[in-house]
Amino acid sequence: MAKPKNAFYAQSGGVTAVINASACGVIETARKHKAKIGKVYAGRNGIIGALTEDLIDTSKESVEAIRALRHTPAGAFGSCRYKLKGLQENKAQYERLIKVFKAHDIGYFFYNGGGDSQDTAYKVSQIGDQLGYPVVCVGVPKTVDNDLPFTDCSPGFGSVAKYVAVSIREAAFDVASMAKTSTKIFVMEVMGRHAGWIAAAGGLAAEKAGDAPHIILFPERVFDEEAFLARVDQSVKAYGYCAIVVSEGVKGKDGKFLAESGLKDAFGHAQLGGVAPVIAQRIKDKLGYKYHWAVADYLQRAARHIASKTDVEQAYALGKRAVELALKGHNAVMPTIVRKANRPYKWDLGVANLADVANVEKKMPEDYITEDGFGITKKCRTYLEPLIQGEDYPPYKNGLPSYVKLKNVAVKKKLGDDFKV
Amino acid sequence: MAKPKNAFYAQSGGVTAVINASACGVIETARKHKAKIGKVYAGRNGIIGALTEDLIDTSKESVEAIRALRHTPAGAFGSCRYKLKGLQENKAQYERLIKVFKAHDIGYFFYNGGGDSQDTAYKVSQIGDQLGYPVVCVGVPKTVDNDLPFTDCSPGFGSVAKYVAVSIREAAFDVASMAKTSTKIFVMEVMGRHAGWIAAAGGLAAEKAGDAPHIILFPERVFDEEAFLARVDQSVKAYGYCAIVVSEGVKGKDGKFLAESGLKDAFGHAQLGGVAPVIAQRIKDKLGYKYHWAVADYLQRAARHIASKTDVEQAYALGKRAVELALKGHNAVMPTIVRKANRPYKWDLGVANLADVANVEKKMPEDYITEDGFGITKKCRTYLEPLIQGEDYPPYKNGLPSYVKLKNVAVKKKLGDDFKV
Repeated sequence: MAKPKNAFYAQSGGVTAVINASACGVIETARKHKAKIGKVYAGRNGIIGALTEDLIDTSKESVEAIRALRHTPAGAFGSCRYKLKGLQENKAQYERLIKVFKAHDIGYFFYNGGGDSQDTAYKVSQIGDQLGYPVVCVGVPKTVDNDLPFTDCSPGFGSVAKYVAVSIREAAFDVASMAKTSTKIFVMEVMGRHAGWIAAAGGLAAEKAGDAPHIILFPERVFDEEAFLARVDQSVKAYGYCAIVVSEGVKGKDGKFLAESGLKDAFGHAQLGGVAPVIAQRIKDKLGYKYHWAVADYLQRAARHIASKTDVEQAYALGKRAVELALKGHNAVMPTIVRKANRPYKWDLGVANLADVANVEKKMPEDYITEDGFGITKKCRTYLEPLIQGEDYPPYKNGLPSYVKLKNVAVKKKLGDDFKV
Repeated sequence: MAKPKNAFYAQSGGVTAVINASACGVIETARKHKAKIGKVYAGRNGIIGALTEDLIDTSKESVEAIRALRHTPAGAFGSCRYKLKGLQENKAQYERLIKVFKAHDIGYFFYNGGGDSQDTAYKVSQIGDQLGYPVVCVGVPKTVDNDLPFTDCSPGFGSVAKYVAVSIREAAFDVASMAKTSTKIFVMEVMGRHAGWIAAAGGLAAEKAGDAPHIILFPERVFDEEAFLARVDQSVKAYGYCAIVVSEGVKGKDGKFLAESGLKDAFGHAQLGGVAPVIAQRIKDKLGYKYHWAVADYLQRAARHIASKTDVEQAYALGKRAVELALKGHNAVMPTIVRKANRPYKWDLGVANLADVANVEKKMPEDYITEDGFGITKKCRTYLEPLIQGEDYPPYKNGLPSYVKLKNVAVKKKLGDDFKV
């Protein structure tokens, strides 16, 4: 019997609280099929690891270490922001990939990422037909932005959603306590440069009238200062305070990000100071209310301590399914999440073609935002709610989550040369 | 037998993840001693509730609702930032308190707060001797700033400490994954205008060389830009990235907060934009590294979802002990935490006199900061480590923590007048 081909696995783009759970699913499943898959080599820093022959031998990691990936945030092998050009534009890169794959007997390519990364996976899937080196390419979906098409949701999003909803609920309890004599306004900035999925998730914290957040600002809506300030004032008068979730990507009527609107440092350089302080300061200037603001940034997408159990399970299942699809000979595909029912939530796995997925962005439906532009509709809530269900706490040691740092032992290089990326 | 006196309880100053656990301790314990304590009336918005005769009848709350306070962040009765003047300076206020206490037959005064609040409690304790209305006054310690004297730690601090250490660990895993082609610097701003206790807690995440945070900036040290940038560069070169925890109160050589250093809005007004973006921008300007930054603000002190179990237990125990001290006739005192052993951590309850506590600030010891000014010493770690031990997760419903909102039924006013505060 022929020696089984090795697999290449890499993480790409912005990392999440659960991308390592997908890695865990890929590696554990591959280990169960040693007759068909040899070793799993991970790319150090995504596709760059493949191009520079910087491979990590995951077989050197213990069963326990790989299992611990399931509860460890971020990218254990390093990620990258690096997009391969088209096959015709930069053939040298693809020839290099083939050279590395040949040298290490790689016959499977698993690429874990968002839209750009699925595009990369798709391009790599073409080298079999176009350059004569057959490799089975399967994408593994991931993105906090929830903008991948064909899949009902993207792993990573559910955990950010949970973090944002939990955080605004907690901070709102705080500001409500302080509002009588002190802070009346709380502004929390969340990720989402182009789509309001993450900001929308904040809306899950509001279960009845008066609950925070009282206002959500979406990148899908041009910032209307007058309507916004009126709503803030109304909230303070009705509830004593106002809690606001704002997407980093909110733009003004001039089409510019509010985060860029006029802040200058001591040298007169424009300073990107975050949109939360801009919003907070406008309220102070116009309405006079004392404010506090927070910018969650990486905290939101790395918050494995409060990950959604649903999200963790889906991330793992997609990694596992990617390997199963490859073993069945599927090429140029990506496993997906298929929603079967809302309440109780039921989901299953499906499959999409990378050719269809690559570079298509799923937008938030128009009817997920209320008519006034400041909240989420019932339809949106019905969609979002299942994604934050369940807790999946990591183990703790000495009061802190016990996350694994892998040994990441390099595979001995076989090519003497140096490839610049 | 005479009808037992009622008790007044109020929350004061900035709230925390566990101040309601102290309220739970006070109310549950008082309910067990109905022969000696009648009803517990809570001040709506702290002492203001007492001055304006705006009292909440906690006896209207169910056993379950009071029990749920233990896992609910922030101040369930509303807090305030309001400091009573001295007895001689504003006798009218004290006479008003007595009038309200008399009208509602209040014989116990429990005040839950930090340094300023213990000062208020102390002043109220004097009205027995000086104005002839005896009331048993007991302070209940609380402050995320950990600056109360005589107690080994202050409830609220341990949970912020845990939040900060968990968050910087998680965000550092994220930036480490991204550093090859993208973000190399992560700056997280935490509370602490005058003392570096909270920033120091970030240091707990670093268990061995190379672990994040690589740099902590304390308000106790003047910001030395040159030394700081050299250290940032060194960290990036050694580990590929640099994770920084910065206290909001860090000042430059000119004695001004860095957060105020030169940011102006479109109208030329100085803008307090947070210190994290200022630090991040300096690094970018001088070293060229791509950055991300976060400002945790209220998220850190409201984060009941990741509260320290030790902190929750101590907060509850101090509330309980406050009532026990009052029942034993102690006046003008505050229960404290006494450390008995570090490893395994053992603590007990003690007692301090409000006269000694009021307005004394506990500073972080000099030898808790490393000589270079960028980290914590072993001694500091030994002190901090026990305070973040254990998790005490709140119950969840629909994917979100199930926090209680009390009914907060007002006690019927007996005084027809209006008192302005």
